[in-house]
Amino acid sequence: MKQNGFYAQSGGVTAVINATACGVLETARKKKGQIGKIYAGQNGIIGALTEDFIDTSKETNKAIAALRHTPGGAFGSARYKLKGLKENLAEYERLIAVFRAHNVGYFFYNGGGDSMDTAHKVSQIGDKLGFPVTCIGIPKTVDNDLPLTDTCPGFGSVAKYVAISTREAALDVASMAKTSTKVFILEVMGRHAGWIAAASGLAGNSRTEAPHIILFPEIPFNKAEFLIKVRACVERHGYCVIVVSEGARHSDGSFLAEAGTRDAFGHAQLGGVASTVATLVKKGLGYKYHFAIADYLQRSARHIASKVDVEQAYAVGKKAVEFALKGHSSIMPIIVRTSDSPYRWTVKHAPLSKVANKEKMMPRSFISQDGFSITKSCRRYLEPLIRGEDYPPYKQGMPCYAKLRKVPVKPKLNKNFVLK
Amino acid sequence: MKQNGFYAQSGGVTAVINATACGVLETARKKKGQIGKIYAGQNGIIGALTEDFIDTSKETNKAIAALRHTPGGAFGSARYKLKGLKENLAEYERLIAVFRAHNVGYFFYNGGGDSMDTAHKVSQIGDKLGFPVTCIGIPKTVDNDLPLTDTCPGFGSVAKYVAISTREAALDVASMAKTSTKVFILEVMGRHAGWIAAASGLAGNSRTEAPHIILFPEIPFNKAEFLIKVRACVERHGYCVIVVSEGARHSDGSFLAEAGTRDAFGHAQLGGVASTVATLVKKGLGYKYHFAIADYLQRSARHIASKVDVEQAYAVGKKAVEFALKGHSSIMPIIVRTSDSPYRWTVKHAPLSKVANKEKMMPRSFISQDGFSITKSCRRYLEPLIRGEDYPPYKQGMPCYAKLRKVPVKPKLNKNFVLK
Repeated sequence: MKQNGFYAQSGGVTAVINATACGVLETARKKKGQIGKIYAGQNGIIGALTEDFIDTSKETNKAIAALRHTPGGAFGSARYKLKGLKENLAEYERLIAVFRAHNVGYFFYNGGGDSMDTAHKVSQIGDKLGFPVTCIGIPKTVDNDLPLTDTCPGFGSVAKYVAISTREAALDVASMAKTSTKVFILEVMGRHAGWIAAASGLAGNSRTEAPHIILFPEIPFNKAEFLIKVRACVERHGYCVIVVSEGARHSDGSFLAEAGTRDAFGHAQLGGVASTVATLVKKGLGYKYHFAIADYLQRSARHIASKVDVEQAYAVGKKAVEFALKGHSSIMPIIVRTSDSPYRWTVKHAPLSKVANKEKMMPRSFISQDGFSITKSCRRYLEPLIRGEDYPPYKQGMPCYAKLRKVPVKPKLNKNFVLK
Repeated sequence: MKQNGFYAQSGGVTAVINATACGVLETARKKKGQIGKIYAGQNGIIGALTEDFIDTSKETNKAIAALRHTPGGAFGSARYKLKGLKENLAEYERLIAVFRAHNVGYFFYNGGGDSMDTAHKVSQIGDKLGFPVTCIGIPKTVDNDLPLTDTCPGFGSVAKYVAISTREAALDVASMAKTSTKVFILEVMGRHAGWIAAASGLAGNSRTEAPHIILFPEIPFNKAEFLIKVRACVERHGYCVIVVSEGARHSDGSFLAEAGTRDAFGHAQLGGVASTVATLVKKGLGYKYHFAIADYLQRSARHIASKVDVEQAYAVGKKAVEFALKGHSSIMPIIVRTSDSPYRWTVKHAPLSKVANKEKMMPRSFISQDGFSITKSCRRYLEPLIRGEDYPPYKQGMPCYAKLRKVPVKPKLNKNFVLK
């Protein structure tokens, strides 16, 4: 008897994680002879533990197709990490019990490094408990920090958003600089690695164009050098555009966002690193500034998603199902770059054991000698990832995003499972 | 002998102020028999005072056409207000001297309320000094606060950006709410009027959809009611999306952004009103939050400009030249709405004396009884303004924005004018 599949979204969502869901669901629908229903976890893996399944077979083909151009996580995501098999054995056993009850033989887990680790462990415990589950981890993260894959679906779109926003805001501040704002600061995501900050470098075609300064988590912040650079930039160009990663830090490892100002109650200031950098500029040089914090806007900006990213997000979902049906398990589809120019890529796979819990950092060679900009090799890597536009449909000026029915599956197990 | 024209950009720039420049310049090129060269002020009106003119006749037709899809102020803007004729007589006289030296008989001033006032005064002083200048104010402001015109070019695009960003970020936080962020706050522009904040209301089709709470400058902030509303929203929907205007204020008129937290040096916190609101939510209700500050991104986001806005921005530029050549002076082209549905508009004109220094506030009837959302009449007003997309051309994933030559005009006056 053919088995059903379970799909779950995990961690911070992206502009294209639903394109991956679309790839999974459309492919499974085409392979009806080999795979049964695909259930989606309501709020990710939590939906598996509490037996809150969504029956995706109740969604129309049109609704599923619309997932391709819809940001956010359509089924709900979760920041919920299953730890080691020993510490969390009851939860792993529960997962297998739920899968067994619903005849789920395929587990598609769409997330970052932690999720790859979970998918790997579920595969092990299933074997152990005599209910083997084909486990496929599907890469997703704006942080671009998964190993082995050339890039992570989700990253290309945030990269494009940040590069375009930087170019646009730079034109704005350039217009204002004579009598008003001289320094503009954009805060972007990336707590551990500077991939997103690096992408802002695509806004300019040379080092004299904005952004003039990028602050990476990888390069310890040097206040004196920074202020010299800002002043030189304003004196030369009339203005200065700075992009700062939320993970920018001092040489002792502490975040810029934490060190320094505190509110009246003694709490660390909540305004983020952009306001810290703005304060340094104002106090050190007296320049008028503006700053923006992109936050969720950057990772949900489906309206300006990268076409390459959307295609890759869809492809890893599609391939996940195809690999599973070919008998592969405990693997993650990966994107392999076969050529920079013209840009060519294909999808292969890597064992989950090799991708779980490993972070891919930016190579030092991607950051300029002075630590404030990107190098040609970084540009060569990044440029193809933001190519092409993939506009959603619009109605009366607003993008039309998928609305799902989300029909729940009737639970089969009696006991209510309590989350730790 | 036919006279030349002078065009200047003023105040905060917008995603479409260059579309207006495009309308002025393309129309003047078509009317070569009636009007000479159009000079643009380098950094707005300052370029007139210091005789820093850009000769737009040196730009290619292609470059001028590209202005239509380029954000920022292509010739540089200025926050520089000429006050009354008495206080600033020397500056007004200088303006006329520079215009006379370059045979400038047409002054096109593209800005907000202050600029309309200046254009009006220049018209008066020109007559007085025996060098009459045809003065046309061209409306521009993201704040949408100019009177008599149905809307201000620049507003429709920021409205569209804010509405789309709110819809997208709402999908993101909805996915995360089960285990992580429950409250998302977006800070938008609008120091005096809540037009931009109101536009976020277009993100949802009903009052149960995000944004769940809008904080307007027009409605005194009531902390207790606000927290009750946030809690009810999280309990009902699982999450809460809040859009706050930078001008949100307490009942005593002080800004939310000022009151409250101070940094370690006793300075008012610089993080903006979003972090103030976030802190209130965290302290009052304990919910995990995220916040974004759109800042310049919202008014430079040409990549998602409103087609209606672009067309209106171009039309007021075109009409400015046509009205001037028909002998009108001391007027501002205004947008007149002739029908809501289907949306129809035309360009007429109003005397500068009636638009100068007057702010159009949001009618109270546009804000719901409880002060937290927009009404149907507000929606009926706003909806047409964000209609249609007008995408810029792209190359290798990035928008191609105009690059001008900006050839300076040789000064004709010897004495160097010193700005006050």
